[in-house]
Parts: sequence; structure tokens; C-alpha cells
Amino acid sequence: MAETAEAPRKSKKAGRSKDPQAEAKLMALAGNRVAIEGVSPEIDGGRFAVKRLEGEPLTVSADIFCDGHDKIAAAVVFGAEGSEDWSEEPLTFVENDRWTATISFDRPGPYRFSIIAWRDLYATWRDEATKKLDADKLTDLELTEARELVAKAQDSGRGSKAEQKALGKLLEKLEKLAGKGDQGGQYQLMQSPETIALLKAAGHRTNLSRYPGNIPVWVDREAAGFSAWYEIFPRSQSGDASRHGTFDDVVKRLPDIREMGFDVLYFPPIHPIGRTNRKGKNNTLTPSATDPGSPYAIGSKEGGHDALHPELGSFEDFSRMVKAAKEHGLEIAIDFAIQCSPDHPWIKEHPEWFDWRPDGTIKFAENPPKKYEDIVNVHFYRGALPSIWYALRDIVLFWLDKGVRIFRVDNPHTKPFPFWEWMIAEVRKVDPGAIFLAEAFTRPKVMKRLAKVGYNQSYSYFTWRNEKWELTEYLTELTQTECAEHMRPNFFVNTPDINPVYLQTSGRPGFQTRLALAATMAGNYGVYSGFELCEYQPVPGKEEYLNSEKYEIRAFDWKAPGNIRDDIAFFNRLRQKEPAMRDFRNLQFYNFWNDHVLYYGKRTEDLSSFLLFIVSLDPHASQGGHFEVPLWEFGLPDNASVHAEDLVTGNEFAWTGKMQHWWLNPQDRPYAVFKITR
Amino acid sequence: MAETAEAPRKSKKAGRSKDPQAEAKLMALAGNRVAIEGVSPEIDGGRFAVKRLEGEPLTVSADIFCDGHDKIAAAVVFGAEGSEDWSEEPLTFVENDRWTATISFDRPGPYRFSIIAWRDLYATWRDEATKKLDADKLTDLELTEARELVAKAQDSGRGSKAEQKALGKLLEKLEKLAGKGDQGGQYQLMQSPETIALLKAAGHRTNLSRYPGNIPVWVDREAAGFSAWYEIFPRSQSGDASRHGTFDDVVKRLPDIREMGFDVLYFPPIHPIGRTNRKGKNNTLTPSATDPGSPYAIGSKEGGHDALHPELGSFEDFSRMVKAAKEHGLEIAIDFAIQCSPDHPWIKEHPEWFDWRPDGTIKFAENPPKKYEDIVNVHFYRGALPSIWYALRDIVLFWLDKGVRIFRVDNPHTKPFPFWEWMIAEVRKVDPGAIFLAEAFTRPKVMKRLAKVGYNQSYSYFTWRNEKWELTEYLTELTQTECAEHMRPNFFVNTPDINPVYLQTSGRPGFQTRLALAATMAGNYGVYSGFELCEYQPVPGKEEYLNSEKYEIRAFDWKAPGNIRDDIAFFNRLRQKEPAMRDFRNLQFYNFWNDHVLYYGKRTEDLSSFLLFIVSLDPHASQGGHFEVPLWEFGLPDNASVHAEDLVTGNEFAWTGKMQHWWLNPQDRPYAVFKITR
Repeated sequence: MAETAEAPRKSKKAGRSKDPQAEAKLMALAGNRVAIEGVSPEIDGGRFAVKRLEGEPLTVSADIFCDGHDKIAAAVVFGAEGSEDWSEEPLTFVENDRWTATISFDRPGPYRFSIIAWRDLYATWRDEATKKLDADKLTDLELTEARELVAKAQDSGRGSKAEQKALGKLLEKLEKLAGKGDQGGQYQLMQSPETIALLKAAGHRTNLSRYPGNIPVWVDREAAGFSAWYEIFPRSQSGDASRHGTFDDVVKRLPDIREMGFDVLYFPPIHPIGRTNRKGKNNTLTPSATDPGSPYAIGSKEGGHDALHPELGSFEDFSRMVKAAKEHGLEIAIDFAIQCSPDHPWIKEHPEWFDWRPDGTIKFAENPPKKYEDIVNVHFYRGALPSIWYALRDIVLFWLDKGVRIFRVDNPHTKPFPFWEWMIAEVRKVDPGAIFLAEAFTRPKVMKRLAKVGYNQSYSYFTWRNEKWELTEYLTELTQTECAEHMRPNFFVNTPDINPVYLQTSGRPGFQTRLALAATMAGNYGVYSGFELCEYQPVPGKEEYLNSEKYEIRAFDWKAPGNIRDDIAFFNRLRQKEPAMRDFRNLQFYNFWNDHVLYYGKRTEDLSSFLLFIVSLDPHASQGGHFEVPLWEFGLPDNASVHAEDLVTGNEFAWTGKMQHWWLNPQDRPYAVFKITR
Repeated sequence: MAETAEAPRKSKKAGRSKDPQAEAKLMALAGNRVAIEGVSPEIDGGRFAVKRLEGEPLTVSADIFCDGHDKIAAAVVFGAEGSEDWSEEPLTFVENDRWTATISFDRPGPYRFSIIAWRDLYATWRDEATKKLDADKLTDLELTEARELVAKAQDSGRGSKAEQKALGKLLEKLEKLAGKGDQGGQYQLMQSPETIALLKAAGHRTNLSRYPGNIPVWVDREAAGFSAWYEIFPRSQSGDASRHGTFDDVVKRLPDIREMGFDVLYFPPIHPIGRTNRKGKNNTLTPSATDPGSPYAIGSKEGGHDALHPELGSFEDFSRMVKAAKEHGLEIAIDFAIQCSPDHPWIKEHPEWFDWRPDGTIKFAENPPKKYEDIVNVHFYRGALPSIWYALRDIVLFWLDKGVRIFRVDNPHTKPFPFWEWMIAEVRKVDPGAIFLAEAFTRPKVMKRLAKVGYNQSYSYFTWRNEKWELTEYLTELTQTECAEHMRPNFFVNTPDINPVYLQTSGRPGFQTRLALAATMAGNYGVYSGFELCEYQPVPGKEEYLNSEKYEIRAFDWKAPGNIRDDIAFFNRLRQKEPAMRDFRNLQFYNFWNDHVLYYGKRTEDLSSFLLFIVSLDPHASQGGHFEVPLWEFGLPDNASVHAEDLVTGNEFAWTGKMQHWWLNPQDRPYAVFKITR
């Protein structure tokens, strides 16, 4: 350098250091030359697991790019949590630096995935060499570089023994051709499908980079995402309101329930019921001596959460019932309600689990505006941490031992999220097929958080969504936004706590409509018994059922005239028969030009199961209008024909042209279901 | 428990374990009872820093909620990276479990923030006690609980000495009142502003939870986000195309440049220029003996990146110029172009830094479709890792020593992202006020990544966005989406590489339009000299300037008739004078019913500086139409009046009613700027 142009160096030492820590940082950064970002799905930066069912596709996407103009390649790597055995699935470029691949997992349990990417110098070579060949400018230089690429693949040692051998042979052939000056021959060999496959498998991965996160995936058995629930109070199953029902009475009801096609049979709590502040009929505070009390007031001198209400039967009876249900294709779900009647044994055995006031009382439970004078809540912190966490976990494990694998959890949003996260994880160590349904009707982010911390299913706002715009908006959120990755709604049409206003005035057609919507839009849906009889009598002005089974024993004529058992059986059969029904996120709304008619479809990827649903939301008047047949989903023009089968009537016809017309008379049937084929 | 109802326990041991590891997990989870999620801003899960200027507001939001119905409270905690001294700013509830707070940082450097939240049992008490009082149900029980809360605050030891003492006094008073049976007095005391303030400062924070991430923030000096750049080739500053300009010639130009109001004076490379493959005029490959070559062909026997091109002057001259510029309010920015002419000393000294082909050559540089036959690129990996990383860092530190703190980086997207991330962090250790501008015109995600890894400013697509819809769309992306948190565009109206097609045909009005847009929409904007003279002659059919200064020395008449120096000075004065101009994300588009007219505003939070811009995009014909005066921003009804001052002409008037009309004649002036006040 010229004297004049150079200045003496005199810089602050701090920046010029080459200390080992700074260099370690440099090398760590340098090790990830290819940028991998915007990975989807990833819940809260990997804090919570993405959920999938066994065999259900998981489409992974990411923005992947490198400096410069070389070709890159990328793959999803995935495997069971804790295992060193990772599989690899190549990612495909879509557009705008976005790449995608679809993977799936066969068995329930915890998994992880991440993304790797590298500079693919062989692909870059192929691209450039082809351009040069086309421009008649391919030289020995490019072909020498080709041989260097093959030699580098050998050195990398990535290939199997056979592949290493094949690389050696390839190099030999290339050298032989080079010796003969056969440029074309070398080029052909480097571009052959065999060479491409060989270098894909065994080529050097230059600047191999890895996404820093290992994104957790929780895989469930199918019942977590696809199930039809039926809820009964066992004590009301004797057929005689004056006789307390038993597990044996439930066994007698099984054929009847199975006939409707349900998969899960769910009971409110079956534990001993407290006496103190026992509720009378219709939630009164003045019970008679014979009133059975609310089963949610758990615990008496007969025992607590690990005991059975003696009038229902013994553990032997329970066990016999679980077995019988299984034989009828029904799985038993029980309630996990963490609360105690003032008579629960825990109150004396574990006073540290309760929140005592200065006057020596425990505050009774509230879920505003509801008041539960007959129960008190436990405390999860202070003296109860961690002992009650273990005790509650052990209650769940206890019932798991009794053959129960599905738990509907009462009001989980009034118990700490960390408790659920820990408890569900603990139970899954014993049985990854355990299923928890969160009965939280509360603010949206709270409901989503419960799903994130581990709940397999969630109650939803469906029960109150009646209009076309709100159903469309809500289902779009559930199926198309991030919560679809972790929250699986269970669409209950009614519950012992919710006698929906819509059904109080809709008559039978409204019950058919709500059934159709629940059974076809969601993966999981539920019916509280009495719904099939179009029971609707409310406590005046409230969403509560009059003479609720929560406070008294009832008897029903399960085949009373006007029932909708056939509709229920139809939809449950449809759900079993058509693969399109097993997915939830495949819901697609289409145009029907009438604000009282909801029109949507579900289909498998291969279109072999393509169903269309037209449901009238108006239980009082006939509704109809024009609708669009989604010919475009088949890649067909607007004037094409498809074959349509009315799955209710069995009628078959051809729909020609995109615009069709349909009419629904609620007194006849407020829904239509079509299967379309090309 | 009754014999009949209890079953023997026999569970799998795995689940019942209380091993220390599982319990540690339990306790860690339990320690974060309050859910804190959806924190914004957070770039890629905290992988990259949010950017702010010194003093610039940073609004932090998060979803915060807890189980149950108790009141919660939350705060942002923040402080300098590495410091234990955290400040705290309370978060305020907005809606739907969203909380927000605004913080700011005074000095450049690295910071961190996180969020804490807790159950506020005192607030819960106040709420419940007030309800009970209103219902005439307040009892001694609630007041005993109040005293317990105060005692708990004492035990927590959170308060200062004075606060602890005040808590003691409060408790004494409460006990005295309790002794007298004065319920109202205790209630009043617990609800007094003093008690509220005291318990806010010193109350126990039940279930104090913390967001797991410490989100990085990088704070820049103002010039990183608010600057007006002017670009010149020093060698063209002699006023005589046959004489090579010097740093002293630049000094003579300073008053002229400062008169236009620029803050930053930027030079293309000022290093020795190579001879091998030197470019001739208009990028030809056949230079004459006197052609100076492209300054981007860095390095000759006179030196490389730490040398000065001898004809420009010595380091003494350079230093004098830097000082003179400073006295004129101008900061010098230089080019950091990591590339070498074939004559660069590094090629012999460090062959391991280059990518040699089998024939002993180095591939010349390309940035498709551009070819740079006079330069070769360095290699950052293999033998060059990490030695060239250090060498390049030291080049930047070298120029920092010479008084240069702003670096415009040439084609950073063709160099590894990890290099930039490491290098910029290293330089910031020496000078947190160092500024790097990324000259990357490439794919959007690549440009954003460069901003994420540390670039303070970025070239943008502005140079090619001419239509109303595309300007609106692009500016909305830049100011309203996540990239606003980390990417600060520098709107160059032209560069030595880009002679925009729009300006090639627009005449003078087009230059005024593009100036108005750049200077008012972005925080940073730039002008390459010649623009003020409405220079537009292209290489036919290309975006290149004819007779580009990149390949030859030019001389200009800087005050030639038809120049737009007054417009430039007007906008640069406006930028300095009006606080609303210092923000970038405050840009707001309003309605002007003409697709050729862009209409937008900028305002400070307090509305004391509220500017409206009406800019015609049509350089050929007059355009006008109706527009909406944003009365609603003042909370005014549609028929209200505001005072408007035309900042160009000085005319003042009252606009009454939301709908107004304006007309722009490009031959007169294609823009209007108003300041409105209530």
C-alpha cells in the first residue's frame, strides 16, 4: 500500500478482540447460513404442542432462503420425543421463499419436528451447466467441477455403503469419459436420473443449517378429534322417577343408545353426594328429605372422588357396565369436577387444601352469575402445593385403572392452567390415549389456553351461534386460524346446564337443524339426552331446563312420538361411512343466496368423499334459493356436470352448471346432504 | 369411606411417582400461574431485536389472564442488556384480555423487556367489599381480611423502609378502628388514595408470574431512523470533467449541499481502483488509458479497503473533510462494498478468501442480470472462516476510527446473513451509534432478514412504486405490519444504479412528485446528485444513467435553470421543523377521490403537529378532486371547522365540513402540504 494512502491503526481494543467466547458465537452463527424462519405451525414459539390425530396430515411450511444465487434444498426432520431416530421429508418450494411438506404420525404420543436446509451445489451445477450447454459454452472447467462434486460426496460419508460404492463407480466413469474428452457423455451422466437420486441421497450438504426450535406435536388417538357423545344421568335410567337408577339400568339402555350411533357415553359425576346445603328440585335451597341432590356436590361420609355413589352400584357393577358399553361400541366418559361438598372427607383430612376465611368457614363456589351453595373449591397453592396436585392426578389415574379413558372436566378455567399442563402430561405418561374435554364456557383466550396446555377437546360457543354470519365467522376462526392447530371443539347441541333459547322456541325442526350443524361441521359433537325427544321446557326466562336432572331423578319415554332418533342415526352413520367427515379443518363454506340457509362442504384430498350440506336455520318457514355447485374443486368449468346423490332420500341426479336451486321445508326436513362425484 | 364404594388401588407405578425431576417441573409450572402470551412486538420469538430510536415510544401489548375471577395486575419490566437494574411500567387493560403499556429508551444500545403479572388480591378485595357495602352486607369478616392483606404486604418486604413504616401505621389505624367497631372507617381507610398507592407500591404480588422471554430491543441514535441523504461521487466535484475531484473539492461543495438541508453526505467507494478488466465509459469492456474505472472495483497496488484512492487525497485531507462536513451539519457515509478488483492485495495475501476454480481463476461477480467483470467476490466459509470475518470487521472499525459512523453496504444479500449479524454486533460493541444501510434490492423476505440481523436502514421498493394503489399497499406494509418493528426503509428517489423509468419521461413535475413522496412518507430518504437538476438521460431501454458517473468523471452546473433545489430545501426544512415528520409509523392514508392523487397525513400523538399531504402522481395533466379532512382525528363532527395553513404558500384558511376540494397543476407544483389545527 502506498504510504500516502495508509493511516496508522489505532482502534479501541474492545472491537478487535478475538476472545474465545466471541469466536464461539461467530462459529455458531456461521453454522446456520441458510435462513429458516416463519415456521408453521408453531404455537407460541414452541411453548405448546401442535395437535394431530394418528395418521392425520400435518403440513409444515417455512420461509427458507440463503444469501447469493445458489440453489438450496430443505427437509422436515421429525421423530418421537426423546428418540434419536429422526425421519426426513423433503420440503418443496412453493413461491416467495415459502417451502412446504406434509408429514404424519402413526401412534399417539409426543413428537418433535424441525427443519434443515442446505446449499445444494449439485443442483446449482446442473442448472448452470445446462445453461452453458444450451449456449454452447460448456467447457472442461464445468466438468472438472462436476467430478469434484462427486468426490466431495464421497468425502462427506453421508451415503450408505452401496451409495458410497456407486459414487466411486460414477467418479470412475466420469474420469474415463474425461480422458476421452467426451464432454457430452460426462454431462449426460451427471444429469441422469440415477445420478440425481444418488447425489440426493449421498451428496454433500453444504452449509447444513437447522431451525433452532424442535416444535412439539402431540398425537392423539382418533376419538380425541372424531367422536359423537351422548350424555345421560345414570340415576335417571331406571325408567321410574321414583327409583334411583343403577349401572345395571345403564347396561339395559346400551342397545338403544348404540342404535343412534354414538361412540361415547358420558356421565355427570357418579360419586357420593353431600348432604350439607343439598339442593332441592330446580336448584332450590330447601330440599325435601328424599331429594337426591346435585351430583356435582361431590363427597360425603361414603367417600369422595375415588368412590361411587352407593345407590348407583359397586365397582363390580361399574366394571361390568364399562365392559358392556365396550361391547356396544361405546366408550364411557366420566366427569372430573374438582370441587367438594362440605361433607367431602378431604375437608377434615386435608384442611390445607381449602381457603379458610378468618371466621373458620370456606367460601362456597361461584361461577358468576351462578352460585353453588352446596360446594366449595379446593386451593392449589400455599399449603396445597404440591400435595393436592398429586392427589388430583391420582384420582384420574385411579379411574384410568377402572377402564375410563375420557374425562369431561368441569369448569377447568377456574383452576390454574399450570395444574392442567402438569396433570395432563403426567397422565399421558401412563396412557397417551387419555382424553380430556374442557367444559369452559368463558373468554376466548382462556378457552384457547386450556387447549394449549393439553386439553384434547373443548366445549365451544357453537351452542349459542345460530345465525348464518356468526356460524360462518366462528367456524372460519375454528378451522382456519391458528387455534385449529391445538383446539378441537366438541359441538354440544345442549347440556344439562344449557337449554338454548333457540331450541326453546324452534320446535322439532330446530332440533333437526342444530343436530345437522353439530354432527356435520365439527369432528366431535355431543347430545345431552332428551334432545332426541325435543325436550325444551325452560325455567322461565332462563337457559336452564325445568325440572333439571341435576336436582332430581327423571324418567323419559325414549321413543316418544316426534323424536328425532332417525335423524341422529342418519348423521352418525354418515360420519362413520364418509371419510370426509373425519376431518374438521376441511370445512368449506360455499355461496347460497339466502341468509337463512347455511351451505358448506367437506371433502377428502382425493375428492372421493365430497359432501355438500344445505341447512336451513329458519325452523318456522320454508327457505330456498340458488347455490353454487363447487365445480372448480374438480377443476371443471362453470357449465360442467357432476353427479349428485341425495344421501337422505337416495335420489340421484346430474347437476349441470354451477348455479342450482334448492328448497327446504322445515316441517319436512330442514337439511339436505349430497354426495357429489365427477 | 364405605367399604362397598372403595376399590383397592392398583395402578401403574410410572404415573404415581413423585420423583424430584417431575416435581421440579411441577414447581416451575406452578410458578407461572398467570398466563402471559401473544406478546407484541416480538420478532421471531425473540430471536431478533425490535428496533427503536432513542426516545421513540415502544408500545408493548400482551394477552394476560389467570384462572378464576380474581383481579390481576401486570407490568412491563425493562432495562439495559446485561444490567440487573430493571424498570417497571404498569400495563393497562384494554379489552378481550389484552393489556398495553408504552415505554421508551433514552440512549442507543441493547435493551431487554419482559412482562410480569400477578393476582392483585387487594384490588379483588376492594371490588368485593364495595359490592357488599352497596348491598349493605359488609361484615367484620371482610375487614379482618383487609387487615390480613396489609399484614401480608408487610411480610412480603416489597416496600421501601418508608413504605414498610406506612404499612405498620395503616395496620395500627385499622386495628384501632376495628376495636371501636367502626366498619365504615376501616372501609374508608382501605379505599383511600394513599392506601391504594401504598399497596400498589408495597403490596404482596400473589402468584407473581413472568413471561419466559426477555425480548431484545436495539435502540439507535436518531439518524438511523430520520435522515436525509445526498449522494455524490467525490471525483466529480472539481467542476471540470477533465480534472479528478478531491476531498478538498468536496469541502467546497458543502455549503451548497447544506443549503438544500441534507443531513448525510454519502460517497460510493473511495478506495484505490483496480486496473485489470477496468470498465470504460458506459460500462464498456474497452476502456481508454485515462478512464478512471468503476470505484466498485476495489483494490490495486495502492491498497485495498483500508486505503484511499490517491487522487482523492490523503487521510489528512479526508479527516479535514469529515470535520468540515460536521461543521456544515453533514455526516459522512461511505460505501462498504465487500468485493475486490483482481488487483486487490488480498488476492495474493489471502488466496484462502477466494473461490478458485480448477483452472486457477476466480469467478467474476454477478448479480443477475448484471455482470461485474472487473470484480471478484470473497468467500466467507471454508478457509476464510473465520479469518475474513475478522478482517472485514476490522475494516469497518478502521473507518470508524476515521470518523465515519454510517456505512451504506453494497449488495449485502449476496453475503451470508450470519456474517452481518456477527459483524454488526461486534461493531456496536465499539460504537452503538454505527449505522448500516442495506443496499439490497431483492426478494422481500431476504430484505426483511437483513433488517432483522441488524441493519439499521434498508433500501426499498419505493423507487419502483408509482401508482396510488401500490404506494398505499407498500407503505401500509412498511408502516403497519411486523416489519415496521425492525425494518426502516430509506426511500431513495434515484441511485447511480437506478434511473427510474418514471423519471425518464416525467419531466420536472415527476421529480417534484417523487421528492415529495420520499421526503414526507419515509423517515429516511435519499437523493443521488443530479436529481435536483432533473437529470434523466438513460442508456436507451435501460434503468441506467447515460454517461454514468460510475464509469467516468462528470461535471455539473449545480444551479442550472429548472432545478428543484427550492423544493428540496422546503421539504428538508419541513422535516426539521415539524415533529410529526420524525415518525415513520404514523403515516395514515386518507380518502381523495382521484386515483392519480395520493393523500395522506402525519401527526404527533398530541395533534400539535398535524400535516396533510396531497401529491399528484400524474406529471402530465392537472388532477383534482374531493378529499376528506380527518376531522374525526380531533374528535370533531363532520360539519366542524379546522384551521389549515398551506405550508408552501403560507396561505391560511378555515376548512368547514369534512369534504373539501383541491386541484394540482403539475406545471405549477404537483404537491400541497397543509398544517391543520383545531
